[in-house]
Amino acid sequence: MKNKTIILASRPKGVPANENFKFEEREIPALQDGEVLLKSLYVSVDPYMRGRMSDAKSYVAPYEVGEPITGGIVAEVVDSRNSKLPKGAVVLGNLPWQQYTVHSGSGLSQIQPDVAPLSYHLGILGMPGLTAYFGLLHIGEPKPGETVVVSGAAGAVGTVVGQIAKIKGCRVVGVAGSDDKVEYLKQELGFDEAINYKTAGDMKEAMAKACPDGVDVYFDNVGGEISDAVYLSLNKFARIAICGQIAYYNSTTLPTGMRVEPILLKMSALMKGFIVSDYASEFGTAARELAAWVKEGKLQYQETITEGFDNIPQAFFGLFSGENTGKQLVKVADREA
Amino acid sequence: MKNKTIILASRPKGVPANENFKFEEREIPALQDGEVLLKSLYVSVDPYMRGRMSDAKSYVAPYEVGEPITGGIVAEVVDSRNSKLPKGAVVLGNLPWQQYTVHSGSGLSQIQPDVAPLSYHLGILGMPGLTAYFGLLHIGEPKPGETVVVSGAAGAVGTVVGQIAKIKGCRVVGVAGSDDKVEYLKQELGFDEAINYKTAGDMKEAMAKACPDGVDVYFDNVGGEISDAVYLSLNKFARIAICGQIAYYNSTTLPTGMRVEPILLKMSALMKGFIVSDYASEFGTAARELAAWVKEGKLQYQETITEGFDNIPQAFFGLFSGENTGKQLVKVADREA
Repeated sequence: MKNKTIILASRPKGVPANENFKFEEREIPALQDGEVLLKSLYVSVDPYMRGRMSDAKSYVAPYEVGEPITGGIVAEVVDSRNSKLPKGAVVLGNLPWQQYTVHSGSGLSQIQPDVAPLSYHLGILGMPGLTAYFGLLHIGEPKPGETVVVSGAAGAVGTVVGQIAKIKGCRVVGVAGSDDKVEYLKQELGFDEAINYKTAGDMKEAMAKACPDGVDVYFDNVGGEISDAVYLSLNKFARIAICGQIAYYNSTTLPTGMRVEPILLKMSALMKGFIVSDYASEFGTAARELAAWVKEGKLQYQETITEGFDNIPQAFFGLFSGENTGKQLVKVADREA
Repeated sequence: MKNKTIILASRPKGVPANENFKFEEREIPALQDGEVLLKSLYVSVDPYMRGRMSDAKSYVAPYEVGEPITGGIVAEVVDSRNSKLPKGAVVLGNLPWQQYTVHSGSGLSQIQPDVAPLSYHLGILGMPGLTAYFGLLHIGEPKPGETVVVSGAAGAVGTVVGQIAKIKGCRVVGVAGSDDKVEYLKQELGFDEAINYKTAGDMKEAMAKACPDGVDVYFDNVGGEISDAVYLSLNKFARIAICGQIAYYNSTTLPTGMRVEPILLKMSALMKGFIVSDYASEFGTAARELAAWVKEGKLQYQETITEGFDNIPQAFFGLFSGENTGKQLVKVADREA
């Protein structure tokens, strides 16, 4: 049985390219007691992976050159010597970009296949959806009538943040990087307002205009000058969830800029960083609530699904040229069971 | 009846001086229905007042030139047309620097005179003590064995923060501005470690050395480079209470410097600004707990009490040359009742 794997051949400079990846065929070792053989079904490609391909210090460890890329994958157990994960079970895990993986079973979460399409567990019911859910609801604690701002609004996380905020009765303002995305947020997802930061001119003015009653909750994927503009519109007792700081991912020194602390003091505001795994014990409850919202049509969800294991690098590259709408995935194989 | 009042004659440049203040005698108006006549007993002088004497933007409104300075005062009701505040009652309020004040009674809190010396209600049982209490316990949530760092550690707030953290079983590290203060914190107040930031050299190294297990809670009165040093030693899930940012009080533009957001993200850390009045509904409970700790000898408290209304400006000036140890007060009159 052939097993293709994709390894990091070299660290990209700027936009990643084919030369940075190498396909190899590797043997599948025999299963030991307690192990399972996983067949990859859906592979997630995500912008954060670009950061891990550099060796710059970041909040996630870098990938190693010569080792397989890893990421979120939905896989099927096709052979098992582990009674907790029988053949036919479907799991979600952080797995190597391989067709097959021998795994101890530890750290995998089993998926109920009847809840939603399997691919949804890499998006709205997976890390991006859960990230939106916990950051917005546990840190932001939005109340009806409040104004919620989300940066990176058209991304896999931001689109869910805005829609949950609408479910909670908030006025929602998104910040994104193209007119098409602004249109999508307002027309398709029901955002009350959206700002194209590339053409808005003075972001502070644009933010103040988009938020006439100030900002109560800010869900930040971005950092930098977009955040500065939001800070200046914060209301008393505002809450800020720091989910990503993409503005600084490529900086090799500690970033400098406007100090947020005096504003937090003046406004008795709260700011909290988080990573979705902080809330691991509550994933089940959250995924069920997200699934219910999807079923009721309250949460719209878009996927772009590329077919074929060999096309994983291309699907990844497409993230940086904006080829995908919504969550980008690669379908690698059909389910056997 | 004479009534002396101290008005802001001009805005200080640098350190305040006599010329910035003017003593006036003002008439005491007749009491209207619902009003009380207050006699000032103890007047608090505090560093934050310097900020209010400038017209630079800050989180507290500036004093007006030609108007009396206001601040924390313990006063006795010596005449009353308000049934809720009978003659003989003792109150705490934000009042003008005057011997007598006619007041509507609104916003005053009545003091139980048997709890502790009256002056304590301007310090350990008043705003500084309550500020320490709520910032440390409600935002910092220190757990036994954790490391708590406090900046401005030898001040009226910082000394209480450190001692409460010791009561809660924490390792406590203070940052202060002289060797005497460092000695005081370690020898008298039981701090585990203290850093003189003026002589420490590289603060980042000094902080890392003083906190070998990292920092779990940071109570910040100061901001600036002291805070940057603490940020670099933060542990996962650290909590930061922003109480003051004295490093920026004299800056007329929005301060810039190291961005804390990427560190909060990396560490899933929380940062929250506050002002003591955010917790007004819980003042009673907190003051009782503080009073009990004082009575049990668990909280040490030092006051420097200057005598006489005319000496209020000198007592205030002394704050900036470090003449006081602990809380600086002025005793203006004895209680009548």
